[in-house]
Amino acid sequence: MLNVTIALEMKTSALSALGRRTAPPPISWLMQAALSRPKLISLAAGFTNNPTLPVEVSRKLLDRILRSPKTGQPALQYGITAGETNLRRLTARHLQKLDAVSATSKSHAWERVMITGGSQQLLYMTIEALCDEGDIVLVEDPTYFVFLSILQSRGLRARGVRLERDGLDLAHLEIVLQRLAKSGELRRVKALYLISYFHNPTGVTTSLAKKRGILKLLKQFERVAGHPIYLIEDAAYRELRFKGSDIKSALMVPGAAERVIYTGTYSKPYAPGARVGFGILPESLFATVQRIKGNHDFGTANLLQQLLAHALETGLYDKHVAKIEKRYGQKAQVMKRALAEHFPPNVEIWESGGGLYFWARLPKNIPAGVRSKVFQAAMKNDVLYVPGELCYADDPARRKPDHEMRLSFGSASEGNIREGVKRLGEVLRKFL
Amino acid sequence: MLNVTIALEMKTSALSALGRRTAPPPISWLMQAALSRPKLISLAAGFTNNPTLPVEVSRKLLDRILRSPKTGQPALQYGITAGETNLRRLTARHLQKLDAVSATSKSHAWERVMITGGSQQLLYMTIEALCDEGDIVLVEDPTYFVFLSILQSRGLRARGVRLERDGLDLAHLEIVLQRLAKSGELRRVKALYLISYFHNPTGVTTSLAKKRGILKLLKQFERVAGHPIYLIEDAAYRELRFKGSDIKSALMVPGAAERVIYTGTYSKPYAPGARVGFGILPESLFATVQRIKGNHDFGTANLLQQLLAHALETGLYDKHVAKIEKRYGQKAQVMKRALAEHFPPNVEIWESGGGLYFWARLPKNIPAGVRSKVFQAAMKNDVLYVPGELCYADDPARRKPDHEMRLSFGSASEGNIREGVKRLGEVLRKFL
Repeated sequence: MLNVTIALEMKTSALSALGRRTAPPPISWLMQAALSRPKLISLAAGFTNNPTLPVEVSRKLLDRILRSPKTGQPALQYGITAGETNLRRLTARHLQKLDAVSATSKSHAWERVMITGGSQQLLYMTIEALCDEGDIVLVEDPTYFVFLSILQSRGLRARGVRLERDGLDLAHLEIVLQRLAKSGELRRVKALYLISYFHNPTGVTTSLAKKRGILKLLKQFERVAGHPIYLIEDAAYRELRFKGSDIKSALMVPGAAERVIYTGTYSKPYAPGARVGFGILPESLFATVQRIKGNHDFGTANLLQQLLAHALETGLYDKHVAKIEKRYGQKAQVMKRALAEHFPPNVEIWESGGGLYFWARLPKNIPAGVRSKVFQAAMKNDVLYVPGELCYADDPARRKPDHEMRLSFGSASEGNIREGVKRLGEVLRKFL
Repeated sequence: MLNVTIALEMKTSALSALGRRTAPPPISWLMQAALSRPKLISLAAGFTNNPTLPVEVSRKLLDRILRSPKTGQPALQYGITAGETNLRRLTARHLQKLDAVSATSKSHAWERVMITGGSQQLLYMTIEALCDEGDIVLVEDPTYFVFLSILQSRGLRARGVRLERDGLDLAHLEIVLQRLAKSGELRRVKALYLISYFHNPTGVTTSLAKKRGILKLLKQFERVAGHPIYLIEDAAYRELRFKGSDIKSALMVPGAAERVIYTGTYSKPYAPGARVGFGILPESLFATVQRIKGNHDFGTANLLQQLLAHALETGLYDKHVAKIEKRYGQKAQVMKRALAEHFPPNVEIWESGGGLYFWARLPKNIPAGVRSKVFQAAMKNDVLYVPGELCYADDPARRKPDHEMRLSFGSASEGNIREGVKRLGEVLRKFL
């Protein structure tokens, strides 16, 4: 027999703290519910528009890549952890073009570009590289709910910063930073996460002036924090713009090269099923994130990287983006008109110049969260939306708002957008 | 001014403990070195054979998928975190066929199958789900060096279990478990990681009897541990078999359904550039790992999943595997003959019936590690191998052996295999 104490109780699993913490995604049961109601119209999913997916373009490009062993073999072989050099160069050029800078811009150098399995993977690895349990990440209030899941899973704390129609509320950011400095918690603050273009869920775009203001404030408080505070600029929706002109990225702010982590993706503008994302990382973080990626998967699938590289090189990518921008613009118009027709006038609608979402704010005394009567009635009337409350961090400094809705025009057809908004309008008129 | 203490020193980065720990991969500089010597023959890389990559097969299959919007659109759209249902079903059937069990085998149910970005991603997420900093994972001595990197990065400890020609040394496993029980550390042991087929780096295959023995021993010590101790069976090389018959997986051992995490991949048998891996997970772990994957990337690229599903469905996958098995068999023969001709007779050669590697053991007093004269001379003579020492865990219970080499016949041409082994033989004759 073993000369040791036998544990009194046998646990049924051996999960880590991370394993135990990782909660089911807030919308997984929404998706499940959707499956069980065949007539349900979902204005919840952030999926992209099916009919405009680049099926024929991808077929042609893959045919070209795989027609000869010379290009076909490297596409089917292992590659480099940080991504294929040609795609990294093309991505740098792509970003230089968007920001209208020359190829010599230090902040836009191809050596700082990393190719990842969607920008989601880069967000995950960045948080791994920066944050220990108990650390704090500042987020927009509200923000992307999967990002909140990452923080929750890793035992991190999120602190919300108010959002205005033109982006982050700088005065509130300063208050939040002051408060954290006073409580001695500023040393736990590692980054601010900003969805700067056609924000998920609100559609808000943050102006360049505000990005400058954010970086200035973060810099100012670094002295107290004792370490850099990074700005994670999530530009996932940047290219889904159907109105107005492009805003320059935070990479354009002087000093940004060492403080901005810019994450982008080809998933939404091109094809989510050919998941390729990318990022530009400060030199001081690049090697670390690259090593972490080495442990995750030592490099994103080459076949997908080559597909995107060919799409970019041939100009077919730009053509495709122009096409879908137009299409999303039309679908947004359809939703806008339907909202004007069917929603009660005391619902505040935030319209966006891009992205996939409208943001609807009911009067504050009308809850629209997952347990609310509005949500239940909507489900019963076969229409689904994302309750805004799911997009708010657990922040002891304020009550979680629960009177908002994210409405997506991304994947629903025009007919379904009209019908879905009509159904939702019927529900709202009962409660308002 | 802020009414707070200013940190005296400003750190240049804000890395997490994980970020600080994550070391450069041990072979990254080998790869770099390889690039700077154009005449160098690498017997180091675990890459697959370029000329047999399924370029034409993939072109045809992708053409078929993307020829109609009906199959093309879902392939380019977002999917399900655990993987596409048809690929999960096909993968379950594939494993049922390999293990020669019926579709009703609980251990092989499709609902337990998860599709991942290579099996590497599944290994990473499994470790995330199970292990807290300081926890222990038992590994074969030697083992897959990237797995060791994952453990090191996450602050975990590895303990080596001796490897015999027919697999893990059960007597030594018992000694290791006893020792950990006595030191009170058994409660930190979460899993044993076993590369059961054509092991990387040694080529060893573990017999089913030994798998049974392993599971029995782990079960026995669970009472002391106070929680389940899982067997992670990494079967990445299972289908690269050119000799002998298939060994049944650990999933066949009674009770395995709740203790075995089986990880496999289509990367090595089909194409690393279309990176799709898979796993079979115990019910008690499935939901947790699925949620973690939701945070990593909410599902592997659908286009690649559909490519593999079509390859499996049409039988082209099986045809391709039969073809490459034959090819690797030929290349292994070439290496075997070259080793017999050029290596000194006192080098012990471990030959395998599959996989990509030979394992060469020099006399114990001849170091072959990265800083050894043998390795330096080999580099000078333009031939590269993986020093065996890189495949050993940091384990205080023994000195790290450094007199071994992993020699891969995977990616080098037959001519380069012959020439590379000849060059290495010349080096060895100088030292032996």
